[in-house]
Amino acid sequence: MDLKQIAQNTAKTLQSYLTYQAVRTVITQLSETDPPTSFWLHNFSSREKIQDGEAYIQALLRERQELAFRILTVRAYLAEEVADFLPEMVRTGIQAANMEHRRQYLERMTQIDTVSSSPNLESQIGLEPNVDNPSS
Amino acid sequence: MDLKQIAQNTAKTLQSYLTYQAVRTVITQLSETDPPTSFWLHNFSSREKIQDGEAYIQALLRERQELAFRILTVRAYLAEEVADFLPEMVRTGIQAANMEHRRQYLERMTQIDTVSSSPNLESQIGLEPNVDNPSS
Repeated sequence: MDLKQIAQNTAKTLQSYLTYQAVRTVITQLSETDPPTSFWLHNFSSREKIQDGEAYIQALLRERQELAFRILTVRAYLAEEVADFLPEMVRTGIQAANMEHRRQYLERMTQIDTVSSSPNLESQIGLEPNVDNPSS
Repeated sequence: MDLKQIAQNTAKTLQSYLTYQAVRTVITQLSETDPPTSFWLHNFSSREKIQDGEAYIQALLRERQELAFRILTVRAYLAEEVADFLPEMVRTGIQAANMEHRRQYLERMTQIDTVSSSPNLESQIGLEPNVDNPSS
């Protein structure tokens, strides 16, 4: 497991995602102050792939540099404001989600155990009748 | 700008991305110890959408619970090991990329300025001949 490479790839993904959030923010801001430009940026962003944030910015710099510079400023601001909260949010998010998956799995297993004590369903799911529990 | 909402969405994206990295890690590990299972998980992961990490885990829990549990463990480990480095990596990554975009833009503008003092190209890009600079 190459942790350094995983960290680098994750940071790059995060950078592209914050660029996407910056684009959304600028589109929303412009929809109030300058609707035609907001519409133009919206269309441009559906046309140009935003998955690669840097390629998107380069393409935008060629067409409307003032919008590209605004997005650069907004994404730097977002990184400043948001980044420090992410480690704790992600760790607790994954812990909570893992616990929930394990809980749901156990719950389902318990239901199957209960169900499997019915002779009809035992044959359906390929189990032998439960001879240890004659009450079933 | 709803910073709290942006932070939550970013953390969720990060959680799905670490799940994807955990899946890749498990596929690589299995390719050495248990190639058929590695192949199975690779196929399953191209079939089931991994963009939504939680839906992916739920689907996998129904088919091969031992693999799903292994991925849960690996993604929790990745979150522990990698998350704390991300804020600094993302901030410096965005600062460096922003600076590079601005540098490239200025470089291009300087080239266009030089080019525009040639009369032929002036008409091509719709500029008046530069009367202030008779040497061109």
